Amino acid sequence: MHEHLKGKELLQFLETKSAAEIKEALEYIHPADILDALEEYDEIPLNILARIPNEILVDIIEEAEEEDKGEIFGMLDPEQKLDVISEMASDELADMFEYIEEAEAEELLASLDIERAQELKELMQYNPKSAGGIMAKEFISVKDTMNVKDTFKYLQIHGEDAESISYLYMLDEHEILKGVVSLRDIVTSEFNTPLTELVNPNVVSVPVDMDQEEVAQVFRKYGFAGVPVVDFQKKMLGIITADDVLDIVVDESTEDFERMSALAHHEQEYLDSTVYSLARSRIFWLLFLMISATFTGIIIEKYEIALEQVLILVAFIPMLMDTGGNAGSQSATLITRGMALGEISMKDFFPVFFKELRVSLLVGSVLSVVNMLRIWITSRELKLGITVSIAMFFTVLLANIVGATLPLIARKFKMDPAIMASPVITTIVDAMALIIYFQTAVKIYGITM
Amino acid sequence: MHEHLKGKELLQFLETKSAAEIKEALEYIHPADILDALEEYDEIPLNILARIPNEILVDIIEEAEEEDKGEIFGMLDPEQKLDVISEMASDELADMFEYIEEAEAEELLASLDIERAQELKELMQYNPKSAGGIMAKEFISVKDTMNVKDTFKYLQIHGEDAESISYLYMLDEHEILKGVVSLRDIVTSEFNTPLTELVNPNVVSVPVDMDQEEVAQVFRKYGFAGVPVVDFQKKMLGIITADDVLDIVVDESTEDFERMSALAHHEQEYLDSTVYSLARSRIFWLLFLMISATFTGIIIEKYEIALEQVLILVAFIPMLMDTGGNAGSQSATLITRGMALGEISMKDFFPVFFKELRVSLLVGSVLSVVNMLRIWITSRELKLGITVSIAMFFTVLLANIVGATLPLIARKFKMDPAIMASPVITTIVDAMALIIYFQTAVKIYGITM
Repeated sequence: MHEHLKGKELLQFLETKSAAEIKEALEYIHPADILDALEEYDEIPLNILARIPNEILVDIIEEAEEEDKGEIFGMLDPEQKLDVISEMASDELADMFEYIEEAEAEELLASLDIERAQELKELMQYNPKSAGGIMAKEFISVKDTMNVKDTFKYLQIHGEDAESISYLYMLDEHEILKGVVSLRDIVTSEFNTPLTELVNPNVVSVPVDMDQEEVAQVFRKYGFAGVPVVDFQKKMLGIITADDVLDIVVDESTEDFERMSALAHHEQEYLDSTVYSLARSRIFWLLFLMISATFTGIIIEKYEIALEQVLILVAFIPMLMDTGGNAGSQSATLITRGMALGEISMKDFFPVFFKELRVSLLVGSVLSVVNMLRIWITSRELKLGITVSIAMFFTVLLANIVGATLPLIARKFKMDPAIMASPVITTIVDAMALIIYFQTAVKIYGITM
Repeated sequence: MHEHLKGKELLQFLETKSAAEIKEALEYIHPADILDALEEYDEIPLNILARIPNEILVDIIEEAEEEDKGEIFGMLDPEQKLDVISEMASDELADMFEYIEEAEAEELLASLDIERAQELKELMQYNPKSAGGIMAKEFISVKDTMNVKDTFKYLQIHGEDAESISYLYMLDEHEILKGVVSLRDIVTSEFNTPLTELVNPNVVSVPVDMDQEEVAQVFRKYGFAGVPVVDFQKKMLGIITADDVLDIVVDESTEDFERMSALAHHEQEYLDSTVYSLARSRIFWLLFLMISATFTGIIIEKYEIALEQVLILVAFIPMLMDTGGNAGSQSATLITRGMALGEISMKDFFPVFFKELRVSLLVGSVLSVVNMLRIWITSRELKLGITVSIAMFFTVLLANIVGATLPLIARKFKMDPAIMASPVITTIVDAMALIIYFQTAVKIYGITM
């Protein structure tokens, strides 16, 4: 029993044992763990790949990230390649094909049987972030004439190749989805029970062009292990399983985190990334925002006379800007996250607007009063206190409203709401805060510009 | 066939039809959709709850959020309550019990059969964010003497009550987990196949005290539909299913988004929240950060003489602060997210440190050069250009290093890394940026303080 082989031990085993011993040992090791071990190599030795049985290679490649799939596949010999592409799950295969050179891809497609080649071409034509782009073609369909025993026999032949057998789909002669039978109901029923007695005709399906984020919402709402994908005529095209959705949810969140922190999207894990690629993913937004921030410089220069007369005004600029930025990103995060989870959409624009207005009146008042008190206690400068407090109040008000509505407006114009959420809003709020602040100061101190 | 009843239509149906008609119709409507419709009411009418069959009430309550579970449950009559708590999945029941008053909870516990009451007490004693806190007790265990046919018979009796039957767990006489058999292998095998032929002895399990975020990582890595939970002796205690993990991943991300935007945690959806509760979730951090920002004011006041002599320095304060804040939150986000996904941990402290150092040398240089050029082109002020560029370089350097290491240090001290990620870092970086900037200016301009 080699059940506890992992990491380095596993590699040593692979390096020294015969193909037969390897085959026996790998059967009980999860392919994700084998992949983990292989990733210790900078380049996987060819003699190791040659000794891993093809059916396990398929599983390992399926576990790998998209680019890595292509990389491992590229190292296989021609015969292994053919075996792997005919055995691999269609959704994983379609993902991998994106990373294979066109000439080789054409050649490989030609070597597949016609039906499978067509499936693959179909999958590759969908937007990779839509239901079609993430579905697999291998689902189990049943007919309304079958009973439980027939189904078991059918599964004994076709079950092995399916992406999931938790749900079986009842299709009519035109492949239109008519109902769903859960495997659980089948195994807990008598053999002679007709499937029509077990079928649920009210089947939840997703359209092939649905965005993957919405697909994830369907899974979250219903807690399904799998969801069928249909075209506009309800013809069943494929299946999406819960494990794919978990990755989607994590990836979408990661992208939102990146956007909110002004990072370009970056496929690799941090520790595996080069310094150069990390720097590249940061520099664009830093430059863009730095240059945008020169606006704030221009505003300050415009009010130089005011500053000359009341230099103490400078001391409150960072606090005003930071508080405005924080208030804006609080609103923006709430709205962006709500949109990502399908809780808030453009139709909620006015409710959001008025809610933020009221929240900011409350929050802005508290912050203004605290500021007023602090300045009065520490310096007794009434004019300063009034100026800072008024500026604080209106900055928070505008920051909240801009922060909450900009992501909604962005979505309306097909832009990503998250990009608006934090850094862009900070820049806008900074400029607004300064203008409000200086205008208030000019009025309160009676400065002639 | 009432398969398409949803929302208002469904409510109208529930309000007007007889209990028998309702029972028939609801059978094919997913409980999540029934719950959705019921949530349209501010308070669900009692006469509607009375007409929904108890077994469907169980499903509806299971779908509800934790607090709402308690609320709906509280509206039921005593007989319905007893029925619901004896039918509900143990993990959902344990969650709901947190929202039931102690006296009533005691009473309800006493009315349950002893075994179930004990299960429930066991579940309630675990940390709600650990494997024990999210697992259910209803798993299927099999013995090594069973074959496929025996298993089917066993499932026909016990399958209905299980949380999931995708995996069956082989336990010895001490309930120690010895292996896992997938339902898929069972249904694709001959009836007389012994389970020992199908069992995988190398079963991936999670310890009962594992943090739920790590549990999610196990699911992501292996793509399982369910994972067994064991104690330190490998005694099997329960099962966690993929649909629960999807919610965990979403909730954990939402919490991280909140922390990164200086928001207190907030259970309710935005649109359902009151203005007061939204304001409350924001005010603490805004006040805290506003007061911290007075530090920056103190620094500025300290360099008032420098500013009096070279007022133009003020114009670059916002840009320096913003760029420092952005650079810091880029690093912090990468590291925080990497930690949340289990890719980065404390042992990577030095690799992270040196990587950030090198990234910041690259990024800082680019930003400094761009600044230098811009100032030279627009104003020909060499001293100003040098001052701003030097300050920019060191600000980015420090921002990156503080941003990347602070979340790691926070975790070391059992604090949440995300809280360090954005607002706190901005405040620290602001202060550092100002000190660097003014010190550089004092040197370059030869200002005597």
